Order: sequence, then structure tokens, then C-alpha cells
Amino acid sequence: MKLVRYGAAGAERPGLIDAEGALRDLTGHVEDIAGVTLTPEGLARLATIDPATLPLVEEPVRFGPCVGQVGKFLCIGLNYSDHAAETGATVPPEPILFTKATSAIIGPNDDVVIPRGSTKTDWEVELVIVIGKRAKYVGEAEAETYIAGYCLTNDVSEREYQLERHGTWDKGKGCDTFGPIGPWMVTRDEIVDPTDLTMWLEVNGHRYQDGSTATMVYKPAFLVSYLSQFMTLHPGDIIATGTPPGVGMGQKPPLFLKDGDVMELGIAGLGTQRQRVVADRG
Amino acid sequence: MKLVRYGAAGAERPGLIDAEGALRDLTGHVEDIAGVTLTPEGLARLATIDPATLPLVEEPVRFGPCVGQVGKFLCIGLNYSDHAAETGATVPPEPILFTKATSAIIGPNDDVVIPRGSTKTDWEVELVIVIGKRAKYVGEAEAETYIAGYCLTNDVSEREYQLERHGTWDKGKGCDTFGPIGPWMVTRDEIVDPTDLTMWLEVNGHRYQDGSTATMVYKPAFLVSYLSQFMTLHPGDIIATGTPPGVGMGQKPPLFLKDGDVMELGIAGLGTQRQRVVADRG
Repeated sequence: MKLVRYGAAGAERPGLIDAEGALRDLTGHVEDIAGVTLTPEGLARLATIDPATLPLVEEPVRFGPCVGQVGKFLCIGLNYSDHAAETGATVPPEPILFTKATSAIIGPNDDVVIPRGSTKTDWEVELVIVIGKRAKYVGEAEAETYIAGYCLTNDVSEREYQLERHGTWDKGKGCDTFGPIGPWMVTRDEIVDPTDLTMWLEVNGHRYQDGSTATMVYKPAFLVSYLSQFMTLHPGDIIATGTPPGVGMGQKPPLFLKDGDVMELGIAGLGTQRQRVVADRG
Repeated sequence: MKLVRYGAAGAERPGLIDAEGALRDLTGHVEDIAGVTLTPEGLARLATIDPATLPLVEEPVRFGPCVGQVGKFLCIGLNYSDHAAETGATVPPEPILFTKATSAIIGPNDDVVIPRGSTKTDWEVELVIVIGKRAKYVGEAEAETYIAGYCLTNDVSEREYQLERHGTWDKGKGCDTFGPIGPWMVTRDEIVDPTDLTMWLEVNGHRYQDGSTATMVYKPAFLVSYLSQFMTLHPGDIIATGTPPGVGMGQKPPLFLKDGDVMELGIAGLGTQRQRVVADRG
């Protein structure tokens, strides 16, 4: 299933994309694409619904973040060996964890706002794991069963805030609008191999990132197991798994986003996003 | 006002502590001590209620986290010059931001669980700012008006995970049970000077931390203003503001928590906490 949340920001309704690519409304069947809806039981119940019986929704509509009420937005850094190299770093002996503020989450095609005074706002196409079952001290062999599905994100990052303003990376990762997720959360059964998906990102039509999850170092099942040793993962928590080469910081000379730019990105099977970049005119 | 949440974990009810120190039930007046209840309008409405008209709650009861539905649990590191010195660090030229997972939040007297395999679980008594109004690009002069009130936390920290396991500090800060908040959220009007509050923490009756918010480097109003330059703060977001000297890592030799230890801590006007330390027996 491809699950979505659509409508005005803050008032999204649940829906799904049917086999013909049409949007169908799930209001009345589930409250939200969040929490219990994402559990194995919740998804099994949804799977019994014949999409043809659901109201068709006339498009265009705004797509909101494909998962609501996200509890934790965890992120893995430097998880593609070739991206690590371009930033002058090496892949660490165990995953790097950082956190994005959940208040940074927006819909897949909403505007990305450059913070006031920022000169180093950058892009990162990433595969996101959506947790579907309470996970604590989970072994790697069983970890996949804790995954409800996958979606796409742009891990927008302010490099000065992240690297030059003291403390952890979180300062440059959690700015408002820095976490578009969607358009869909695709359930795990539909993603044959999450470690073999092409992924790309373009700015103003120029392709800067052109990679594959095949070069991911720490794979989704390992990451769920690993993180669950430190903290409990809950249904609706999401984990961004790192980015392949081609970020702005890695260009020679480095290149960052400016007012009016347009980012387009996608991962095979997970849809595409398109964000206009706007200066904060507050 | 001293606002509380009491009852079984996950099913807490709102309440307040009256002038005589008795617990009164707020069910029916507010849904939760969270979100809109914390706004200036929400708190003004609560202030019109005569506590004597509210049902008395027979104690003892369990106190839950004093703020519910926390969106972001932001934390400031190395914010007391004397604590920075004991850890071998210096106070940075601007605040260090890190994040605690909101799934780490527990009640003030709930058990703190040492993660499996952990040998360096440590304590930190801290003053917490509770946000009451949407804050973005707020100036320092007006920042205080965005604060709903204050509470107490123990910023429990696993030092190996925080400092030796690669990546940001978040890995050692967000473990389950590492964020007790409460017993009360005290509204701002009742805290005459948040920068002049004594604070202390004892383990098994020995006082390891004995400080005051007077030695805090970056003060609450500055922190709210500072963080609001990076991301929007929402009602119910909380900010832990750093710890004075005396953490376990700073002892000679370093001393860490073990199964059966008891932590007690307090800040003047904000009440006390008492946590039993237990090993994770899975």
C-alpha cells in the first residue's frame, strides 16, 4: 500500500494511492497515518479494504507529511562511503546518530525556507524507515519485522549551523521546513529490496545526486536493531538513513541553496518531491 | 500555579498543588498539562479557578511527567563554567545544543533504568524551561514572555554512549527513562528569579551536586531567543539548561550509577525528585 496524508497543513486527512495511481480517501477507516495505524495489525486491517470502495479524491491536492504525529526523527550520518569521502570524513565504525526536530517536518512539495542569515543551506536525498512496532533490544535477524514501510526525505541541512556553530549537528538539521517526508509511505511488502533502490536529487534541473541505496553502509535492518539498543523505537518514529554523494558542500567550489531555487528528488518506488526554496522574509 | 500530571503512566490526569500543598484535580477544566493549556490564555483561564472548588485527591499518588505531549526536548550542554571545567571542557562561545528523545521522559519518581551493558550512567540536575508561546526569531528582551514556567529534570546521561560511540551526544542522552520531569511545572510568575535558585543532587544520601542557577552562563531568556533563531519553539517544548559541577564523570576517580542506587535532587521552588536506579533485566 501507498499511504498518504492530504489536505491543508495541520488538517491532513488519511488516504491511499490505488493501483491506478488515484488518490482515495481513508477518512472513517483510520484517524491518521500514524501510531497504531502503522502497526502490523493496523496495516493488516487496512489491507482488507478494497480501494475501489473508497471515495476518489479529485486532484490536485496538497500532500502533507506521509506520517503524522512523528515521535522521533532520528538520522544516521555519513552512511554512504562515497558521501563520507566527499565531505572529507570516513565512515565511522558504528552508525552516527543525530536528531531532526519533529517541528521541521513538512509535506513533500512544501516550500523549504532558508533561515535568516543562512548562507549554507544544503540538500540530501534519503531513504526513511518508518517504525511499525515497539522495538527494544531487537536482533538484526528480526529487525525488518519492526519496519512498517519506507518513504523519501530531503534531509535539508544548514552546514554552518551544523558544523561551525558549536555542539552537535542538531542545530543545523532541525530548522523549520528542513524535513519534507512523502509523498507516500510505502508498506514494506511492496519494497522488494530497500538496499537496491536508485535515488537522485536535482537543483534547478541539474542532477547533483545520482546514487543508490546499494552503497549504504549500515542497512535498514541493522539500523533498527542498533538504535533499539539505545532507546525504544515506537510506531510512527522515523529514521533517515543517510545520503549518497553530490551534496552542495561537496561541490568544488561548494554550492548552497538560494531564494528561488527548485529541488526535485526521488527514490525508486517511493515517489518524488519538489520544493521551492524561499528566503525567510518573516 | 504548580501544575501536575498524576496517575498511572500513560493515563495521567491534570492537577494542581494548592497553597496548602494539597493535590487538586483539574479533570474537566483542561484536557492535559500540555500544548494550549500552557499558552498565556490557557494559564490565565486556569488562574481564574478557585483551587478550593477543585476535588481534593488523596495521596499518595504517582506523579507523572509534569508536561505532556512534549514536542521537542532540547538541551544545552556545558552551560555552567564550573561544570565545564570538571569535564575538561570550556564554555563555548555560543550555546551547545543537543536533543533528548521524548520517549525518554518519565515521572519525577519513576525508576531510572541502566541500559543493558552500560557502565557509565551518570546524573545531572537541571532547570527546565517550559515554552508557552510559539517562538521564532524572538529578541532576548521579550523572550521571557514565551516561557510558561519552569520545572526540574535529571538529565541522565550514558557517558560511553555520549562520548565514545561516535556521532553526536544524542546516543547517550535519549535512553529510555533518562528524562524525569516534575513533580510540578511552576508558572513563571511564581519564580522571582530563575537565575538565582539553589540546586542539588544526592546519590545514596551523599550530596554530589550543590550549586545554583546563578553560575549558569547562558540564561533562560537568552536561550529562548537563541534557539528561536534556528527553529520554532512551540507550547509544550522543553529546554534543559545544563548542570552545575558534581556529576559522576567529574569525580576522582569517576563514579557511575549501579543497580540499587537512589538519586534525590531538587531546585528551590521546583520540588524534588527521587529515582531508584535499576539494571535492565529485560
